[in-house]
Amino acid sequence: MTTYTSEIIGILGGMGPAATADFYAKLVVATPGSSDQDHLRTVIWSDPTIPDRTEALLGDGPDPTPWLLAGSRVLREAGATVIAIPCNTAHAFVPRIEDHVGLPIVHMIGEVARHLATLSPRVHTVGLLATTGTVRAGLYQEWLDRFGVRLVLPDAASQSDEVMTAIHTVKSGTCDARTTALLAHAAQRLTERGAQAVIAGCTEIPLGLPADTVDVPLVDPALILAQALVRRARTANTAA
Amino acid sequence: MTTYTSEIIGILGGMGPAATADFYAKLVVATPGSSDQDHLRTVIWSDPTIPDRTEALLGDGPDPTPWLLAGSRVLREAGATVIAIPCNTAHAFVPRIEDHVGLPIVHMIGEVARHLATLSPRVHTVGLLATTGTVRAGLYQEWLDRFGVRLVLPDAASQSDEVMTAIHTVKSGTCDARTTALLAHAAQRLTERGAQAVIAGCTEIPLGLPADTVDVPLVDPALILAQALVRRARTANTAA
Repeated sequence: MTTYTSEIIGILGGMGPAATADFYAKLVVATPGSSDQDHLRTVIWSDPTIPDRTEALLGDGPDPTPWLLAGSRVLREAGATVIAIPCNTAHAFVPRIEDHVGLPIVHMIGEVARHLATLSPRVHTVGLLATTGTVRAGLYQEWLDRFGVRLVLPDAASQSDEVMTAIHTVKSGTCDARTTALLAHAAQRLTERGAQAVIAGCTEIPLGLPADTVDVPLVDPALILAQALVRRARTANTAA
Repeated sequence: MTTYTSEIIGILGGMGPAATADFYAKLVVATPGSSDQDHLRTVIWSDPTIPDRTEALLGDGPDPTPWLLAGSRVLREAGATVIAIPCNTAHAFVPRIEDHVGLPIVHMIGEVARHLATLSPRVHTVGLLATTGTVRAGLYQEWLDRFGVRLVLPDAASQSDEVMTAIHTVKSGTCDARTTALLAHAAQRLTERGAQAVIAGCTEIPLGLPADTVDVPLVDPALILAQALVRRARTANTAA
């Protein structure tokens, strides 16, 4: 039986709140164990009032950096030893906070790129469904370039009318079959252009797009982040 | 559009961790709103290392009170203005902590009793599926007595072989059709003895017992607690 004592996971969440609940559920499932006491101590700061990340990146809204810093401080003071941010778009602001939080941040997008590079058979081309903020900030582009994976993106119409419409629907709590159809169609257009896998690159997307509606593997960054945290905690425990 | 500014929900969780994730998801769904920013700021301390509550109540394990007090302190220092404990059995320890946490605790079992007393048509007899710790501590008995609702409990064999077996299965992450069958059978025995509703009185139970497998309404205390918190936050907001 595995028990973890030294690591306390800090989750900087609320972006959105449903995605935070989903991420914590994935972390619990990813943790091996047969009783409560085998699981990781976790502190979650879920602040849905953090200004919209995409709006900030497009110059249409306030900079969320002060909220992200304040939330990180809450997590550190609560005893967290590592920070995870289950929001792809928020990773655009990681360079502005990482030197000030005093804790390591496990980088979700970096973990996804690393994961893709180790798949067998090798994935050469991957599609991305994400917010316009994540796409414009080039977050996946930068990391996938490092690992030699080619990225295909939705065209402008699919990005705004399919992907962003679906994300807003999930955030509003009214996700339905039409939302799934929008996302599945956007994914299909990416596979037609050569994507051998599709990244569900906004934490709201897996809530609206079941994996079996996509012809190729659907990569869930929240799940990969959860698995990375569990691996890290096991190492921390061994080292303690 | 409703926005909440004054209330910060503190969730004292980890008992177990899957139930905490499920409770936070229910709180998000129970909150009206169409964007992230309409949701409640929430801080969650999820400590799965808190000693088993049932074992403590049966005299077989350490008292979890110090862990509950330490977790409450983390929540208060993080800015929480109210505490919710999504674990029925842990409510046996509320009298030992409530005078020391410095924050109001919204009492899940009290909220369930209040909810049952307001149902129409009136529920006179209710069944309870809960841990042996919750049953022995008389938590529901005490609150339902105040509201004039009669309680029926599983017999000793059903309590140990059906209810507790199923709860341990959910906690171990291996919940399956057999788990559901055990719980559904235990519920059926309660309805045969006159229960007009059944309380899923351990936060693990709704994870293993879909409402449509029970002939009478299945009352989910986590959902009722979530709804009580949302009502409280709206009032706090109006008063602010």
